[in-house]
Amino acid sequence: MGQLIKEAEKLEHWTVEGETLIRHFSFDDFLAGIDFVQNVSAYSEGAQHHPYIIIDHTTITIKWTTVDKGKLTQKDLDAARACDQFYSH
Amino acid sequence: MGQLIKEAEKLEHWTVEGETLIRHFSFDDFLAGIDFVQNVSAYSEGAQHHPYIIIDHTTITIKWTTVDKGKLTQKDLDAARACDQFYSH
Repeated sequence: MGQLIKEAEKLEHWTVEGETLIRHFSFDDFLAGIDFVQNVSAYSEGAQHHPYIIIDHTTITIKWTTVDKGKLTQKDLDAARACDQFYSH
Repeated sequence: MGQLIKEAEKLEHWTVEGETLIRHFSFDDFLAGIDFVQNVSAYSEGAQHHPYIIIDHTTITIKWTTVDKGKLTQKDLDAARACDQFYSH
């Protein structure tokens, strides 16, 4: 197992499925979740690295992988940490 | 088959799967898709009727059903038409 996957598995609240990092974020109301999606989207566009996002009422699921490499990369770990920051602020 | 499902099946670009209306929307770039999600979200909050949304880079999938009724209702048809309006503007 690569060093990167080991590091990914240490990320609290995230799970590693194959080469994808996944976390479910819960919000008190729908629009709070949408605000979070806006922040994640702005980050994604800046990094030119876009996640798969599911909006299911007050639960937002974010999935990160590096499609053009076919695997998890440092960009995904950085992006997951950015999401955690947006969630805690 | 109910009148409502028949009406749903007539909606161009939407498919009916069981009691759910589904459409995939394509955009030229990521942020255009996010703007669309914002519009759909504002509508949803106003109607207090929220869709299941998948953001997969420049493809946005919207699914409407009425969870508390366990079936498709007039609210879903209205919401689907609202999405079409946001997409065409």
